[in-house]
Amino acid sequence: MDNFEFYAPTRMIFGKDTHLQVGKIIKEYGFKKVLVHFGGNSAKKSGLLDTVLQALDQEGIAYVTLGGVQANPTLSMARQGIELCKKEGVEMVLAVGGGSVIDSSKCIADGVGNPDVDVWKFFTKEAVPKKALPVGTILTLSASGSEMSNSCVITNEEGGLKRGFNSVTHRPLFSICNPELTYTVSKFQTGCGTVDIMMHTMERYFGLGEGTLVTDRIAEGLLKSVIEAGKIADQEPCNYEARANLMWAGSLSHNDLTHAGRSFFMQVHQLEHELSGMYPRIAHGAGLSALWPSWARYVCPSAVERFAQFAVRVWNVEMDFENPMKTALAGIQATEDFFASLDMPVNLRQLEVSPDALDELAEKCTFFGKRTLPGLKVLGKEDILAIYRAAMGKG
Amino acid sequence: MDNFEFYAPTRMIFGKDTHLQVGKIIKEYGFKKVLVHFGGNSAKKSGLLDTVLQALDQEGIAYVTLGGVQANPTLSMARQGIELCKKEGVEMVLAVGGGSVIDSSKCIADGVGNPDVDVWKFFTKEAVPKKALPVGTILTLSASGSEMSNSCVITNEEGGLKRGFNSVTHRPLFSICNPELTYTVSKFQTGCGTVDIMMHTMERYFGLGEGTLVTDRIAEGLLKSVIEAGKIADQEPCNYEARANLMWAGSLSHNDLTHAGRSFFMQVHQLEHELSGMYPRIAHGAGLSALWPSWARYVCPSAVERFAQFAVRVWNVEMDFENPMKTALAGIQATEDFFASLDMPVNLRQLEVSPDALDELAEKCTFFGKRTLPGLKVLGKEDILAIYRAAMGKG
Repeated sequence: MDNFEFYAPTRMIFGKDTHLQVGKIIKEYGFKKVLVHFGGNSAKKSGLLDTVLQALDQEGIAYVTLGGVQANPTLSMARQGIELCKKEGVEMVLAVGGGSVIDSSKCIADGVGNPDVDVWKFFTKEAVPKKALPVGTILTLSASGSEMSNSCVITNEEGGLKRGFNSVTHRPLFSICNPELTYTVSKFQTGCGTVDIMMHTMERYFGLGEGTLVTDRIAEGLLKSVIEAGKIADQEPCNYEARANLMWAGSLSHNDLTHAGRSFFMQVHQLEHELSGMYPRIAHGAGLSALWPSWARYVCPSAVERFAQFAVRVWNVEMDFENPMKTALAGIQATEDFFASLDMPVNLRQLEVSPDALDELAEKCTFFGKRTLPGLKVLGKEDILAIYRAAMGKG
Repeated sequence: MDNFEFYAPTRMIFGKDTHLQVGKIIKEYGFKKVLVHFGGNSAKKSGLLDTVLQALDQEGIAYVTLGGVQANPTLSMARQGIELCKKEGVEMVLAVGGGSVIDSSKCIADGVGNPDVDVWKFFTKEAVPKKALPVGTILTLSASGSEMSNSCVITNEEGGLKRGFNSVTHRPLFSICNPELTYTVSKFQTGCGTVDIMMHTMERYFGLGEGTLVTDRIAEGLLKSVIEAGKIADQEPCNYEARANLMWAGSLSHNDLTHAGRSFFMQVHQLEHELSGMYPRIAHGAGLSALWPSWARYVCPSAVERFAQFAVRVWNVEMDFENPMKTALAGIQATEDFFASLDMPVNLRQLEVSPDALDELAEKCTFFGKRTLPGLKVLGKEDILAIYRAAMGKG
């Protein structure tokens, strides 16, 4: 069990109708003016935005609004938010949406908190934010875990660079999580969210570390419950318990709980970042789903016991003591079958990726030969290419 | 899944040699003078206290010390600490010890933070603390979970009243958890700690609530790993992985994670508080261990499915679908056997409790007829007496 720090100070306000409290909550903290940041038209059409603004009005909290955040939130949108906050003397950012809106809000908060530094420098690791505006969230999508995490990913349109960095300034002050607000999430986006949540836990689970009994059991338990809840939410979008368990699992899967005492690198996320970087139409969860089975089969021989543990404990596969590899592969197959049962892609052909693109993807994923990806098996360019190819070959 | 708030902002610094960083950590926060609060002679003898004071010296942090906290920390000791802090202009309290030292520190912090209110009034619920000094901890015992919890229990020697209350002011600012510092914990105290950690999770698990998939799985996972680590620590006191997993599980079992979406009342803790109130020689963990099997068998018929789930998922009992009660009881038996395997008492006779005391214990536990204990089965005086009697009858 490696040494670690765990610090997840976000106040989570969870359950039915909790978003109606947002005005009261912000007032408690004493903020007088907020930026309400949101995405496309769904927050408007659903009436959620109006409800939120009313709740602020009722408590006499002033606000400015900025909508239009899209998937893969952009630097230019964040810059717009930073200027607006400075001009209007905003004291906190209220994100109403999913991971993209929350990440855009975190970026704005970093920018306002450090007026002398160009905010992009934090993403290129040229500078470190010293403080930030507080961010509160009203979550509308169970997937990214950004509502409780220290991460933030932004795309700089100049050069199409998608970069993320972790910072203690990124932990939201509070997150309001009402599972009912996710009833209208489409079947496809629900599937993407289920995959994303599982992958946040699995990437850590298949990281490095020994003797992490507690962390392993928590990860396995989270996965089992996400599988159960994900199945139900796929079929019954307005099932409260399913939506609630997905939402809570989403926050816990990315708040550092699932890697306490372990080190990890998120190899599949790295492979996927290149993919959706080149094909922006590919949703993050769908890209992960399409890559994971091939990644797992490639890495499995280097960590048969770990994959067998996953198969037995998460998927109730019976251990084949004479042939642990068989058990390990059965767990990978069960995962692939589960993704497919949610109509998620399990290969790159389903995503219409061109075979000609694979070499470039692999090249980019190594930062043009500048890095390998650490993990259960260290992946160099040839390994990465083999995984991309395997992901093309199937289906 | 009930609505809930989850807020556990303590920064956990976990692992080997982490206590050596204490001076640096406190300096980061900018505190210039601290109260170092500790227990008996073990912190002195082991050299831990000297090490801590040296670490403070190295960073130029001034301190005063106050030792002598005992099990069931007293109000008079806390009052002494409050006076000392006021006189010396202390800015934070550093607890070096287990739950008793940490609870005493929390009480001191409440007292100093609210100089116009008698600190005992917080425990009698006549007043609510508005602020408190920050508390940091260096943990030396895996048991209470106080290092990450919002609870605090103090005994007022006048009248022998043991009272607790929960407050956001009780969440430590940081906790330094070095499992190596628990190598010297005796076999008996290790057993008590294992039982206490399990019971913090089990009391929530056997609370009320439905559809808490994630919370159930986390609770079951914690229990499985505590059982595994507890067994090893019992036999190999210097096994790092065992001590580390016990320590981390102890913090997570009482930080509210294991009841997210559920309500609970801790019936067994209530039964035990009266017991160790009347017999101060009885250690908390030993009291819990002696009472739980009888409590469980009494309540089980009201919640057969829940106890069967516990048996199957925590103890790997095979489900008897024709007779779920048989499965449920097998899980209780397995728990009792496990406690016994740690040389923990599993009945009140082993604790030399007098049969004549039972009626008074039951009477006190209902606050002299003023309350019943809510839960899977609501317990009135006759129920409580029946449980105490069953706990005497066996063994």
